[in-house]
Amino acid sequence: MIIPKPVRFEPRPDRFVLDRHTSLTADPAFGEVAAWSRGELGPVTRGELLPGPGPGITLSVREMRPEAYRLSIDAEGVLVEAGDTAGAFYGVQTLRQLLPAEAFRKATASRELALPAVRIEDRPRFGWRGCLLDVARHFMPKADLLRFIDLMAMHKLNVLHLHLTDDQGWRLEIRRYPRLTEVGAWRTESQIGWNGVMDGRPHGGYYTQDDIREIVAYAALRQIMVVPEIDLPGHAQAAIAAYPELGNLGTPLQVATTWGICENVLNVEDSTIRFFQNVLDEVIDLFPSPYISIGGDECRKDQWRASPAAQRRIAELGLRDEDELQSWVIRRFAGHLSSRGRRLVGWDEILEGGLPAGAVVASWRDDHGAVIAARAGHDVITCPNMSVYLDYRQAPGEEEPTPFGTVLTLDDVYAFDPLPAALAGDQAARHILGSQCCLWTELIDSTRHLDYMAFPRLAAFAETVWSPPEKDLAGFRHRLAAHLPRLTALGVEYRPDEGPLPWQRRPGVPGRPEDTTEWRATISEWTRNIRRP
Amino acid sequence: MIIPKPVRFEPRPDRFVLDRHTSLTADPAFGEVAAWSRGELGPVTRGELLPGPGPGITLSVREMRPEAYRLSIDAEGVLVEAGDTAGAFYGVQTLRQLLPAEAFRKATASRELALPAVRIEDRPRFGWRGCLLDVARHFMPKADLLRFIDLMAMHKLNVLHLHLTDDQGWRLEIRRYPRLTEVGAWRTESQIGWNGVMDGRPHGGYYTQDDIREIVAYAALRQIMVVPEIDLPGHAQAAIAAYPELGNLGTPLQVATTWGICENVLNVEDSTIRFFQNVLDEVIDLFPSPYISIGGDECRKDQWRASPAAQRRIAELGLRDEDELQSWVIRRFAGHLSSRGRRLVGWDEILEGGLPAGAVVASWRDDHGAVIAARAGHDVITCPNMSVYLDYRQAPGEEEPTPFGTVLTLDDVYAFDPLPAALAGDQAARHILGSQCCLWTELIDSTRHLDYMAFPRLAAFAETVWSPPEKDLAGFRHRLAAHLPRLTALGVEYRPDEGPLPWQRRPGVPGRPEDTTEWRATISEWTRNIRRP
Repeated sequence: MIIPKPVRFEPRPDRFVLDRHTSLTADPAFGEVAAWSRGELGPVTRGELLPGPGPGITLSVREMRPEAYRLSIDAEGVLVEAGDTAGAFYGVQTLRQLLPAEAFRKATASRELALPAVRIEDRPRFGWRGCLLDVARHFMPKADLLRFIDLMAMHKLNVLHLHLTDDQGWRLEIRRYPRLTEVGAWRTESQIGWNGVMDGRPHGGYYTQDDIREIVAYAALRQIMVVPEIDLPGHAQAAIAAYPELGNLGTPLQVATTWGICENVLNVEDSTIRFFQNVLDEVIDLFPSPYISIGGDECRKDQWRASPAAQRRIAELGLRDEDELQSWVIRRFAGHLSSRGRRLVGWDEILEGGLPAGAVVASWRDDHGAVIAARAGHDVITCPNMSVYLDYRQAPGEEEPTPFGTVLTLDDVYAFDPLPAALAGDQAARHILGSQCCLWTELIDSTRHLDYMAFPRLAAFAETVWSPPEKDLAGFRHRLAAHLPRLTALGVEYRPDEGPLPWQRRPGVPGRPEDTTEWRATISEWTRNIRRP
Repeated sequence: MIIPKPVRFEPRPDRFVLDRHTSLTADPAFGEVAAWSRGELGPVTRGELLPGPGPGITLSVREMRPEAYRLSIDAEGVLVEAGDTAGAFYGVQTLRQLLPAEAFRKATASRELALPAVRIEDRPRFGWRGCLLDVARHFMPKADLLRFIDLMAMHKLNVLHLHLTDDQGWRLEIRRYPRLTEVGAWRTESQIGWNGVMDGRPHGGYYTQDDIREIVAYAALRQIMVVPEIDLPGHAQAAIAAYPELGNLGTPLQVATTWGICENVLNVEDSTIRFFQNVLDEVIDLFPSPYISIGGDECRKDQWRASPAAQRRIAELGLRDEDELQSWVIRRFAGHLSSRGRRLVGWDEILEGGLPAGAVVASWRDDHGAVIAARAGHDVITCPNMSVYLDYRQAPGEEEPTPFGTVLTLDDVYAFDPLPAALAGDQAARHILGSQCCLWTELIDSTRHLDYMAFPRLAAFAETVWSPPEKDLAGFRHRLAAHLPRLTALGVEYRPDEGPLPWQRRPGVPGRPEDTTEWRATISEWTRNIRRP
């Protein structure tokens, strides 16, 4: 409930000293208050009353649900009550939104701040409020990634699913296998758009293990869990380029320079399984997340069909087909992760051929996989491509830069419900952990372009995972009008409602637009392979 | 003097609590201590003893030279004594360097920090320790610019010369003339390298006035003055594209898409002078710097020679030639700035045709202009292209990405003396305010590439303007070996000593390399026009 009567606070040096809180506006994460709430307060125990970082702002932890908070502002000051550090952090994020948009700048000359008197009780609908970022197709420099984490945090998202490896690049230092980055972290050139034209320019980069520790710690201070993804057994050409013995062909491969579903996949030798188990062991050391994704999506089976070794393996194991062979591979990794106390996350393709116990399904092809998996008792993250793939075009027409996928407008994203309709009133609904939007970067080759694709749709997505299911588009549009100046203050180059700015266009560069009806039919066809576990 | 005996401080919660100083390693600008020293301490009065932000670190302002500091670390704690806030800030930057490189990360799991026992007395040799950044040829998003300011600050540079306008783009919102950014802030495509091949991709962007206020305030907190440059009467094609009445041709022009010295220059009508005086009035409101640059470089006179209006103006004013016409234009702006309490800065071309009183010369063509101007009593900033133009190639050979200019190695930059040899022992030497390195961005189209060109040479430059003139290359190399891990921790993609990483190369894209001897001769020829004021 918001009491609309604004109260203007006069600077009172020994009391409610917003005038002294220059850091309120001097730090991207809300200065002292945020520093306090992002973990520097040390462990918080329930019921403990903690003094705020300055007079007038009090943060208090008491018996409340995780991530919930209560924010009260009146003439006496600001009180944030929360059930845990995360809740306090979100309360502070809301407090920040009540300041003028200018407060989102990293420095400002102005020191006059006014806060409305409010009382807000708030808590998230879902515990998994994620965003997948594909740093494999186009590498994102660390500074930009940390900035993106800041942007996620202000939108109260709490899971960064980091897609670290793919056919076009391997972005994570693995000490045991240095060639993964020496060879796999760069490619000679990249396809521009979807017409086969190449840019002739090398592209590369990777995160060192020290970088990852920094990224994970930085995200954790902002209540964000980083879930790494090492994609296998498909989407692994960069690894095969580095270590050809991982592939099926025995011939050297290059790191892929074009987009699409690649035919080169890992072989199913024990040595290859061990290689990736060793990789995952380093991943486990770096990422404290209880969830580790091994991808498992879009694995073409052609090379396994043609490979005597793979066929022998199928026969040895008494498997029915290549789908079950993939399932066998996934199970090997699920077991390995489980033995180290982690849970496997995979795309809904891992349902094909049978799902390992305890695996979490990221359901991207409509909600077919989500419903089947949840009903079978598996935890699920919903991320249906036509609802939350933020690399999909934001409007019909030629003006969108390299238009890709189906049309996914801001309103479409806002309309999305993380809970599949088929599970309404179903006990299985409790297995829907939440949802994540996805930013695949085949056609997103810079942070500026990423800004354009991600915003403002990410704000709409943030509402769908946080707020109650009832929709109010007019209300959202109203809130967004107040939110865009915050993004502007932060230098986020979001898509204007009226379409791209002249320099956000890519004239003459075709994307790969899809028609919604046809694409839905294609997905239906694809997901027939999903078997009830 | 550095006492080499290291003292390990054990965490003592109520005493020298480095263990509690998580913010020491959680903030790019050194957390609480930096927050304190970057202006949030309020006005500092001499002689006042200020408590540090935490037990064990004390900052004290006393009678010392501006920007000087004394840093003492012993078993009792850390003491930074300084003559002013800037000195305290630099003391803290040095303190930061004494921490492990990991302290330069934005977050870290480690909380154990050890400091060596030292006593350092330090002060800069020059007061103008600058870097020119060309955001006109390639726009730099605000977040990247703020990051660059952080990098300058840690190198104790204190002037950011921001080249905001050029033929290829106008990057500053001017409220009175919105077309300067509507039209001038983007171009349809850009030349790749120097072979006439175009990239076919729009490029653009600009800073709003709110952005500028933020940038200026952010820099000021880090003891950096932002000196804006509005380049005229040459390098102004983007402005002419927006307002054709500013040009000589009466025909529409596009924002330039290729590099080089453009023939389109401003006309010399009173209305054009007034237009730019109005522009400068908004610039003056935005930038508190006492110095405002109007460029004045590389103005081709062909259109003035061909223009009846320009020739009439020369006759009316009784001028000798087009050089004097340019000088007349510059004087008009010098007078305008002076009437508003600001000093004009211009490139050494402003010496051609006579220098206005009080103007500061940025001497880029060897040191011809510097010596003449200083002897005539004008303040000078030295920035000879073959010594400090960091867009020039870092090594001979084809491997450097789009190799441009003469070879300027790291050692060459370190060898540079901001004081021209001809002024040694000369009273005029006092007019050398200092020096600035320059990052022109015709061929630098991303922040990643800027990192490559700027670092580690900027570290060498920082030593030349801060430290005494005596050179010690081996010592510098030794210090650099300790410094590179700091840059790595900050995610700076500097040029490795052994040459570019594979993805830092631009195979097949020619630059425009110059031969040092020939180029020196060319510059000698050019600078013959410089007249003794």
